[in-house]
Amino acid sequence: MTARPANAHQARLLRLLRDGGPNSRARLGDEVDLSRSKLAVEVDRLLETGLVVADGLAASRGGRRSHNIRLAPGLRFLGIDIGATSVDVAVTNAELEILGHLTQPMDVREGPVAVFEEVLTMVGKLRDSGLAEGFDGAGIGVPGPVRFPEGVPVAPPIMPGWDGFPVREALSQELGCPVRVDNDVNLMAMGEQQAGVARSVQDFFCVKIGTGIGCGIVVGGEVHRGTTGSAGDIGHIQVDPEGRRCACGNRGCLEATFSGAALARDAESAARDGRSPELSSRLERAGRLTAADVAGAAAAGDATSLDLIREGGARTGQVIAGLVSFFNPGLVVISGGVTGLGHTLLASIRTQVYRRSLPLATGNLPIVLGELGQAAGVTGATRLISDHLFSPA
Amino acid sequence: MTARPANAHQARLLRLLRDGGPNSRARLGDEVDLSRSKLAVEVDRLLETGLVVADGLAASRGGRRSHNIRLAPGLRFLGIDIGATSVDVAVTNAELEILGHLTQPMDVREGPVAVFEEVLTMVGKLRDSGLAEGFDGAGIGVPGPVRFPEGVPVAPPIMPGWDGFPVREALSQELGCPVRVDNDVNLMAMGEQQAGVARSVQDFFCVKIGTGIGCGIVVGGEVHRGTTGSAGDIGHIQVDPEGRRCACGNRGCLEATFSGAALARDAESAARDGRSPELSSRLERAGRLTAADVAGAAAAGDATSLDLIREGGARTGQVIAGLVSFFNPGLVVISGGVTGLGHTLLASIRTQVYRRSLPLATGNLPIVLGELGQAAGVTGATRLISDHLFSPA
Repeated sequence: MTARPANAHQARLLRLLRDGGPNSRARLGDEVDLSRSKLAVEVDRLLETGLVVADGLAASRGGRRSHNIRLAPGLRFLGIDIGATSVDVAVTNAELEILGHLTQPMDVREGPVAVFEEVLTMVGKLRDSGLAEGFDGAGIGVPGPVRFPEGVPVAPPIMPGWDGFPVREALSQELGCPVRVDNDVNLMAMGEQQAGVARSVQDFFCVKIGTGIGCGIVVGGEVHRGTTGSAGDIGHIQVDPEGRRCACGNRGCLEATFSGAALARDAESAARDGRSPELSSRLERAGRLTAADVAGAAAAGDATSLDLIREGGARTGQVIAGLVSFFNPGLVVISGGVTGLGHTLLASIRTQVYRRSLPLATGNLPIVLGELGQAAGVTGATRLISDHLFSPA
Repeated sequence: MTARPANAHQARLLRLLRDGGPNSRARLGDEVDLSRSKLAVEVDRLLETGLVVADGLAASRGGRRSHNIRLAPGLRFLGIDIGATSVDVAVTNAELEILGHLTQPMDVREGPVAVFEEVLTMVGKLRDSGLAEGFDGAGIGVPGPVRFPEGVPVAPPIMPGWDGFPVREALSQELGCPVRVDNDVNLMAMGEQQAGVARSVQDFFCVKIGTGIGCGIVVGGEVHRGTTGSAGDIGHIQVDPEGRRCACGNRGCLEATFSGAALARDAESAARDGRSPELSSRLERAGRLTAADVAGAAAAGDATSLDLIREGGARTGQVIAGLVSFFNPGLVVISGGVTGLGHTLLASIRTQVYRRSLPLATGNLPIVLGELGQAAGVTGATRLISDHLFSPA
């Protein structure tokens, strides 16, 4: 795909077809508020580019039946989500429906060269399976702040080898298509907005609790990246002045108190202290514990695990309560690996937020788990690149 | 003024003339990116409405000299800023330059009827002084959350009698001009953006420390009001789980720990305990203490007062640090009555923010005092109504 929409009307038509699927010319005309003749001109130009194709006759609305159009069914986007401990790669059509999705454990600290090699192997597998011959564009998320205009990670605390690495340029060369790069948490928020629980919500934030903790912020339908691209970096907000020393040098950061890594640490400590026979036996079997073990032990009724989740949820809720007062969102989404902790975690977060924030801000504020799981990041990544491609050239 | 711009180009021209003053047609053409002939059409229409007038010939740029235009010099906007303990009323021209400004102590708890009576008396004085015959529009700020589309205060904690009072409608009837209503802190942020320290900054927030504490948030140049109009309500973020009981029912809220009211309370307590001879003698003289007394005592070298300011600044800085991590602004403005505490307060806030937020967010982050003082709110109020009037009808 080399064509790009020539103007804002065409861009809007492409996004409507992406988000709503095939549609009749008549209905699209209602939505973009163009005269019938101007609409016909813009649609004809899009048909000429090959981005849009005819799709038969629409159901009758009375009078002459309108023609359906849709995005070209052969368009393919690639979504790549590099997490701290795993890589996801997915292929979608132009409507951002996932056609194939691979996931692979991987330590981001192995550096960009090793990670890219793995990503390209996964892309090759998806291509070999016949899902795509080539790609019209790719979006990629990395677990750290990104200088967005250039597509370069900047001073990423958990991925030191990536600082300044030209992710966009390197990947674009390998794949031969346009690439856009963003922080993984921003992409998760965009994914939930595109196809998940935040669909149609204009102002919300999405808290990702994985190995670390981050937050994707959407204002007026657009991701808020902040002045230097570090918006949403909430893992180092202080929750306890007397708390644990954090890797950042401060004390009592949220991330040092509760996160996938902190939970595993606390669970192992409880297992060793004999505070939880359930965790002890899991530690003995596996040699180490993860957040998933805490979830499993809690589901089996282990009181220590339930306490760890409740306490962590309360700390997280304390931070979210402050952000709700500040930002007054219409929705808060909780996602990331720790959502395996499920409703115990959510209940604990909700208690804090509803108790601590003012009624005006919480009166109609859903706090929910993300819906898309592992698919959120890759979906957001394809949304990112399609937003770019479906903008006026 | 009944005319409104007919389209987005005209609106943009009006705002350029408001923010930049008189200008030549040629220079305006460069800024709005319109062809010479289209620009001429739009300017001619604006001249016909009377919103814009000719203003002589511009300096030569080579070739034929261009004609200057400006906003009609007779346009008058009214800015009203109702605080917890005072009312400000100002008249501006269409360039939002203040021509006259009155301020008056007033307790907002006296309710809308009494406050409006006072406001209208002040407006009458300004009118009698010959500054304005009538008003083309008015903006008004109130110290609580506002349902923005309707211009009605909603569940305002410090002004109970105002809940649901139709401020916009009532004032518009009295004044015979269009009125827009907002929260006072949002207007303060808009004022600093229009004519103060935040000029040209797109993403910033403005923390007002007065009787209470609130925050105006600007995202992409526009005020972020949140889903229910309560964005920026940071006074009840918890800073100390073991802290004082707050009027809201929780413990250790920022506002209960540090604000104009809290500082006066702590100063009186120090005066009575004999911890500060300076404060004791001031209390004896005046019968009560305010934040201004603490500022005065600190300036005279009183250690207890300096400690109160430093401790309060640290608490405020702790909250701001979290918000900086979340929002990644380009600037933080500190304003409100307590700015009389000056650089001791600012130093204490800065220490916390620079220590607690990550380097990427604070690397190039000015934290400064507001510049406009009492004029910030009224300037923001006239900006609010002019933004409305200088939008396509």
